[in-house]
Amino acid sequence: LNECEKLRNSSPAELRKLGVSIFKHLGAPRDYSELVVDMLVEASLVGHGSHGIRYIPIYAERIKKGIIDIKSRPEVIRETPSTAHIDGHWAFGQATAKKTFEVAIEKAKRSSVSAVAAFHCNHIGRLGAYTMMAAKNDMIGILTANVAHPIVQPFGGASRVFGTNPISVAVPAGEMKPFLLDFATSAVAEGKIGLSAMTGAKIPLGWIVDKEGHETDNPLDFSTPTGAVGEDGRLLSFGSRDSHKGYCLSILMEILGGLLTGAGSFVDGENVHSYENGILAIVLDIEAFTPLDTFKKRIDSLFRKVHTEPVDPQFEHGEVQIPGEFEWRNREKHLREGIEISDPLWEQIVNLAQELGIDTTHPD
Amino acid sequence: LNECEKLRNSSPAELRKLGVSIFKHLGAPRDYSELVVDMLVEASLVGHGSHGIRYIPIYAERIKKGIIDIKSRPEVIRETPSTAHIDGHWAFGQATAKKTFEVAIEKAKRSSVSAVAAFHCNHIGRLGAYTMMAAKNDMIGILTANVAHPIVQPFGGASRVFGTNPISVAVPAGEMKPFLLDFATSAVAEGKIGLSAMTGAKIPLGWIVDKEGHETDNPLDFSTPTGAVGEDGRLLSFGSRDSHKGYCLSILMEILGGLLTGAGSFVDGENVHSYENGILAIVLDIEAFTPLDTFKKRIDSLFRKVHTEPVDPQFEHGEVQIPGEFEWRNREKHLREGIEISDPLWEQIVNLAQELGIDTTHPD
Repeated sequence: LNECEKLRNSSPAELRKLGVSIFKHLGAPRDYSELVVDMLVEASLVGHGSHGIRYIPIYAERIKKGIIDIKSRPEVIRETPSTAHIDGHWAFGQATAKKTFEVAIEKAKRSSVSAVAAFHCNHIGRLGAYTMMAAKNDMIGILTANVAHPIVQPFGGASRVFGTNPISVAVPAGEMKPFLLDFATSAVAEGKIGLSAMTGAKIPLGWIVDKEGHETDNPLDFSTPTGAVGEDGRLLSFGSRDSHKGYCLSILMEILGGLLTGAGSFVDGENVHSYENGILAIVLDIEAFTPLDTFKKRIDSLFRKVHTEPVDPQFEHGEVQIPGEFEWRNREKHLREGIEISDPLWEQIVNLAQELGIDTTHPD
Repeated sequence: LNECEKLRNSSPAELRKLGVSIFKHLGAPRDYSELVVDMLVEASLVGHGSHGIRYIPIYAERIKKGIIDIKSRPEVIRETPSTAHIDGHWAFGQATAKKTFEVAIEKAKRSSVSAVAAFHCNHIGRLGAYTMMAAKNDMIGILTANVAHPIVQPFGGASRVFGTNPISVAVPAGEMKPFLLDFATSAVAEGKIGLSAMTGAKIPLGWIVDKEGHETDNPLDFSTPTGAVGEDGRLLSFGSRDSHKGYCLSILMEILGGLLTGAGSFVDGENVHSYENGILAIVLDIEAFTPLDTFKKRIDSLFRKVHTEPVDPQFEHGEVQIPGEFEWRNREKHLREGIEISDPLWEQIVNLAQELGIDTTHPD
């Protein structure tokens, strides 16, 4: 392992090379290997290690098990000028989600608003990567997903029912950075518990309850299919110590992602494909309502105003932030300083590369 | 006042008569008087007194001040086959929101998805009334609004920035009741604090902070334009004791409602019309993705499953509920038992009617 230590502190570009080499050695085509690794490295760069390169060994496992079909490609099976329905054919989820947004953006350019749904879609990673495709095209992008594996309890409930069921919305700005809302409707993405379980760190109260329903800060009171290997505790919906509202969003994402798209849902019980993301994209053309320049100027004013509002002296971040700012700042920092990777994760990735016969210092 | 006591405990139908008479005497056309009062009585029936008949005297005041233009009607000023932009011309907000959904449903029938935005729109009341119009047409209805009057603090902030900026989504079911998500992105609708201030009741911790930023259960630490007349405390976004996520939704509703629609936003400062709701409706035709019957059967299964999940023994409601259930149950109860009205509110309504020369026992 020592010979690889230098790579670990090196640029994201070198991490990318190693990742792409791994998927190519697993038989994936070059374009998809690059797409998937770019998405994972980008998630690590913006500070969401939960959706980052920790998925390289997880996807490798899913490829070996036939859950991800590396050769297949998503396909539009039904469409109108403003909608499309996509069968992901169990290709990489990233391939299906990217195609979903490409189609949605194209349709919104012609029809002002579009809705595109996909099923048979593997784990798509960080949702914000796709909604930002719309923002880069001067449009508003909305993406919801369900995750069929049940780990989140309903409000007032005492069982594992929903997935972490995330949502993302991106909005273009003028001179300011775009707005990027991107979160699980659970208190956190399960991967954040998985990362803590891997390193033995405590988690904040309010994320999970243990299997008896008591609040806990121990990640090992919880288990997921992607890392945390403890007890069958339960994730809370966000804000659920105060409110039913996060739960309302959890069930809504289940409806839009799992039922409207034709994808699996926990309600299908034994028949469900635990790793499926049912996804729904909605894209809005701003110019259908407001001239783009006016809109962008007002967005800039809004963000500047919010940004300079008075701050609670107790607040850890020291200033009011715009959604997405956390990510842009992390990105700059990690491009400068490299991506932090825990020892156990690094070991997993290097072992995987070596199993595949890859020279980890000069991956091909 | 005594002669009216019996009306107070009588059927919603009699409350409707009195309300319609009040708006007619204020000069509003019959159709709009009926629409507005129906919406307000319905909100009280489903248990959202915050959006209910307490608005009869508030709207009367706004009519007298020229904020609501009782004679004007909303108008589509720009459209495509799948989008429309509506100028509400400061008519009753209910008239504009209803028209917004009528247009959106019609367009979604032809184009599978639609987006309709409105500005110059007065207070629209309870959002769920409009999204349910889509559900009744076997479609999914989404409605977001901003409220230009700033009372909600940003996550980590210490000033009044956002309105209560609500969202509603309605989804049709088969044999089960429809799904209805309908909430302020603040901890509560400001009207719920207004109602407590009126009766002197305490409010739960987690709703507001006082002007110094301390948690408080005293509604008089807070002031709003529609009832609460205390100090300049601040509403929290929902879940904000645990999470930034409610705040992300507050600012998103500001963008969609206040900026995309061309309506006012707190960012416009002195120039903003405090009572404006900028609204955006998105309607999705289920059949673009999944056969309606299949969808409805799966929705029924989902709701039945969630409904029978194990319950936290501490949970006050005793069973896991589907969003909307609270409202259907309240409606049945209030149709049986009548609508509860506090003495001060009842006094306001009766005084208003008497000022207008209405015989409150036999309103015309």
